[in-house]
Formats: sequence, C-alpha cells, structure tokens
Amino acid sequence: MQHQDYLEQAIQLAADNAVSGQGGPYGALIVHNKQIIASSANQVTRNLDPTAHAEVLAIRAACLHLSSFQLQDCILYSSCEPCPMCLGAIYWARLAEVYFACDRTDAAQAGFDDSFIYTEIALAPQLRKIPMRQISVPNALLPFTMWSNQASRIEY
Amino acid sequence: MQHQDYLEQAIQLAADNAVSGQGGPYGALIVHNKQIIASSANQVTRNLDPTAHAEVLAIRAACLHLSSFQLQDCILYSSCEPCPMCLGAIYWARLAEVYFACDRTDAAQAGFDDSFIYTEIALAPQLRKIPMRQISVPNALLPFTMWSNQASRIEY
Repeated sequence: MQHQDYLEQAIQLAADNAVSGQGGPYGALIVHNKQIIASSANQVTRNLDPTAHAEVLAIRAACLHLSSFQLQDCILYSSCEPCPMCLGAIYWARLAEVYFACDRTDAAQAGFDDSFIYTEIALAPQLRKIPMRQISVPNALLPFTMWSNQASRIEY
Repeated sequence: MQHQDYLEQAIQLAADNAVSGQGGPYGALIVHNKQIIASSANQVTRNLDPTAHAEVLAIRAACLHLSSFQLQDCILYSSCEPCPMCLGAIYWARLAEVYFACDRTDAAQAGFDDSFIYTEIALAPQLRKIPMRQISVPNALLPFTMWSNQASRIEY
C-alpha cells in the first residue's frame, strides 16, 4: 500500500466518526512492517477524555500491541496534521515517520483549536491565555535527584 | 492550602515514583473547589504508554471524576513545567490555571526531551527531526464536511 492509501483509510475512519455523532472528525492509524497494527478515531466526547485524539489512541494501542513504550519502526498516518498534544506524543513514542492529509488551517476552519494551541505553545508561559506560573519550591529538584540515583530506572 | 503546598505534594508523588523505579520523576494533581480531585505520577514505562505523563493521567482522572471532557474550573499543579504534549492536553481540557516547580531546562539536565520537543514543535513539519509530510488526498476535507453537517455533533 502507498502512503495515500493509508491516508484514505484514516480519512474514512474520521468521516465515519463524524457521521456517527460520537466523536471528532479525525482518524489515525499506525503501520509496522507494512501491517496496520493500530487505528482509531477521535473519542474525546465519547470517553470523556480530552486526550483521546485519534493519534494518541492509536499510539497507545500500537504500544500495547508491540509490548513497548516506543514505536521507533512505525509510521503514523493521520487524517489531519497532529495537534501539539499529538505531536508531543509522536516524539515521546519516537515514531519513524508521520504523514497527514489536512492541516491545522483546515482544522481551524472547522472550529478546532489546533492552530491556536500551536501559537500559544511558542509563547513564554506567563504570556499565554491560560495563566501559567513557575513557583519556587525548595525541594523542586528532589525527584530528578532520586531518578539519577535509582540504578534500576527505565529511561524513556 | 497554598500553591506551594500543592506543588510540594506533586513533588512528593514524583520523588516517590522515581524511588520506586517504576516510572519517571514527575507528579501532578488537579484541584477543583479547593479539593484535590485527581493525582498521578508518571507511568510511561509501567503502563507501556508514552502518553502516560503525570499531567495527562491526572487530567483523564479528573475528567472521569467530574464526568466532563473539560476542566474549566480546575487548577493543575505539576512538579515540572508541562511538556508540549501535556501543554496541549491542558488547552484541550481548558484548565483555568497551571502551576509548576521545575522547568524544561531542569528536565533536560535530567535527560528528558521536553526542551528538544519544544524546539521541534516550532519548526515547519518538513524541518523536524522526525520526517513529517502532508500528502494531497482528494477527499481530505470530507471528515470536516461530515462534522459540519452533523446536527448532533458535540463540540469540544
């Protein structure tokens, strides 16, 4: 299968989900060794989970499928450019490649915040629309010290 | 309780998790009407889930607690500045405020990718370390059209 074929499947997942009225118009799938090992549509409102974007759900399913918390040899196909949350998830999962059909501008025209969040993330925390503030706490670095001292730590 | 008190609890969650050897050195909690309604430490390696950051897990738990996919009246406290994935989740959940103790530089010094991912997100997709490409697909906008036409859609 070609990239476009996988993307058409992701778009179909997204369209079916929109028609169902049960979730957002997004779909994603993950391919490993030319096999689709995970696919999902957006389930934010169905699952009462704002993190249940198609890409996040597909990443979580693929990891369980491979019994791994990383997806180095996998390719993600998404009906739309991943939002910043999903992009972060892609980096933490260390996916090999990403392909998408629509982009953040298309999502914004449909009423979604992707483009807005990309703009916000580039700002310093104190300049963002959601107030964010670093507060000095004496033992703030204790967790990192404990982590460095833990010989059996599993890095990720 | 004061902001610093909540942050100290988040730091303790993070330190305990690091000592356990079962997950990353991060903790987060969510406060609603002055009550802690959700808390979590990082569970990436334990759950085989690269999205199981403390903030994401706390957001998901708080949403289930409130039976809502948004957290408009809630405050997030995190032991460390949220990474881009968690920051995206914070925007989608529409949290009211965010407080954190350490920042992305501290995380980088401990070997974590937060700062790297912030840099990557600001780049155009084709310039990123993980190859990302938009591919033209004829029916790419179909999901958004279906979404707009679905009268019973639940916006999020």
